[in-house]
Amino acid sequence: MVGWIDEEHRGVRYGLAGELLVEETSPFQRISVIRSERYGRGLLLDGCWMTAEYQERHYHEALVHPALCGAKSIERVLVIGGGDGGTARECLRHSGVQHLDLVEIDGRVVELSQKHLANIGGNAWSDPRFKLTVGDGIAWAAEAAEASYDVVLVDGSDPAGPAEGLFNRAFFEHCRRILRPGGVFATQSESPEAFREVHVAMVRLLREVFDHADPLYGWVPMYPSGWWSWTFAAMGDPRYRSADPIRAEVIAADCEIWSPRWQRGGFEAIPAFIERDLSR
Amino acid sequence: MVGWIDEEHRGVRYGLAGELLVEETSPFQRISVIRSERYGRGLLLDGCWMTAEYQERHYHEALVHPALCGAKSIERVLVIGGGDGGTARECLRHSGVQHLDLVEIDGRVVELSQKHLANIGGNAWSDPRFKLTVGDGIAWAAEAAEASYDVVLVDGSDPAGPAEGLFNRAFFEHCRRILRPGGVFATQSESPEAFREVHVAMVRLLREVFDHADPLYGWVPMYPSGWWSWTFAAMGDPRYRSADPIRAEVIAADCEIWSPRWQRGGFEAIPAFIERDLSR
Repeated sequence: MVGWIDEEHRGVRYGLAGELLVEETSPFQRISVIRSERYGRGLLLDGCWMTAEYQERHYHEALVHPALCGAKSIERVLVIGGGDGGTARECLRHSGVQHLDLVEIDGRVVELSQKHLANIGGNAWSDPRFKLTVGDGIAWAAEAAEASYDVVLVDGSDPAGPAEGLFNRAFFEHCRRILRPGGVFATQSESPEAFREVHVAMVRLLREVFDHADPLYGWVPMYPSGWWSWTFAAMGDPRYRSADPIRAEVIAADCEIWSPRWQRGGFEAIPAFIERDLSR
Repeated sequence: MVGWIDEEHRGVRYGLAGELLVEETSPFQRISVIRSERYGRGLLLDGCWMTAEYQERHYHEALVHPALCGAKSIERVLVIGGGDGGTARECLRHSGVQHLDLVEIDGRVVELSQKHLANIGGNAWSDPRFKLTVGDGIAWAAEAAEASYDVVLVDGSDPAGPAEGLFNRAFFEHCRRILRPGGVFATQSESPEAFREVHVAMVRLLREVFDHADPLYGWVPMYPSGWWSWTFAAMGDPRYRSADPIRAEVIAADCEIWSPRWQRGGFEAIPAFIERDLSR
């Protein structure tokens, strides 16, 4: 049954022509897998667009490569959320990664992604460096040993439902605590347009918790307004702002969006209204 | 009658909740004026979103200020298209502008914008420096004297219907011819995602016609994919890449999006797939 699958947000809707393949309710949320004409198979959680096969690289490349090309070492990586596998896939393209923990709260998101969106996780699911834990990423961060990860990436949904605890000080402080010296933290940080207040609050809070935090701006058409951000944070130096040239060269050849130049642009392209909000 | 007003493009739709205020067919196109819950009043041409009161500044600031802060002199400005008045309004914020010709092919777009979208044109319509001509901008460029404008801005719709002739070599060559030394040309140049081929072809063609041409990337949520571009071109030096600090300071204080920093970012944030397309 082909029709429109829409997400509505404050008087705006973004829809893809396609059909619903699977819909079920897990203990955490309603999970929908669709097939779209334009972007291949896609995933919605509680009716909000999460990802689609041919519209996921901008998001995943933007979240991963500034962190993985910037951190001093990248041996141990923690991904919180990211049950579709795309963030893990991009991380594991870096040969310096020796171990990646992915902690996703909803095991059904992983299972449905593995079955229906296999392209997004790609080889990550079978990579010997990859370890999946179905569990609470907030508790994982609280319980992990001090200085036990080089990179911590948060690939969660909006600050409501299961992802709510990914947007507060206690969580960010644990992320700082479990980072090794020279490590980088990164999180998706919402739309500067459709979620302006949340976006600004996240950047401010990260600047209080870490020595440095900077938003990078990019684009995910299926998310509200299409205009999106990821915020990177570190102690000591803002290492995420300049890409290690050797790591970057290996990775950039197969990127659709990311390059060291694109990354420099994304950190500079802060709109005037957000720059003013942040300086208040 | 409140409902959804959508633009559909290749299996994707973007809709605003609202109501239709006016719909009529001019000799050139179908013109619709709507009132939306989220972005105020808006305009569609042939069913495609053009602008809305609270979603127009990103587009207009991005098209205007890199050109007006970059050109050697800004005494005489030509705007082709732009019948909603927003481009003229942003230009006329620059006190150095002494005369602005706006040449819009469809007089009904101007009349309906003046009546229903008065905020977008603002004071431009009554500014003594402003001169409206309802007519063919392509013919205007062909007939204008050599070296008669400091800045030429093209604010047209997609390359189909009345705007088709704004996307070809003969037109761009006339724009180059009518620019004074140190002048800057700028045009909206479509989405790198939803109109990838047109976008790349425009940048390439402008690089053949001018000594320099560079795309700047930004957002217009209501346009297909939301990811948009404007391309700037010049002879001699790429003057549009650095903003005159005195002009910039005066203008930036009242910009929503634009700043010299945002502009630097927008020129750098070229996605890898477009950079590869352009180097082929």
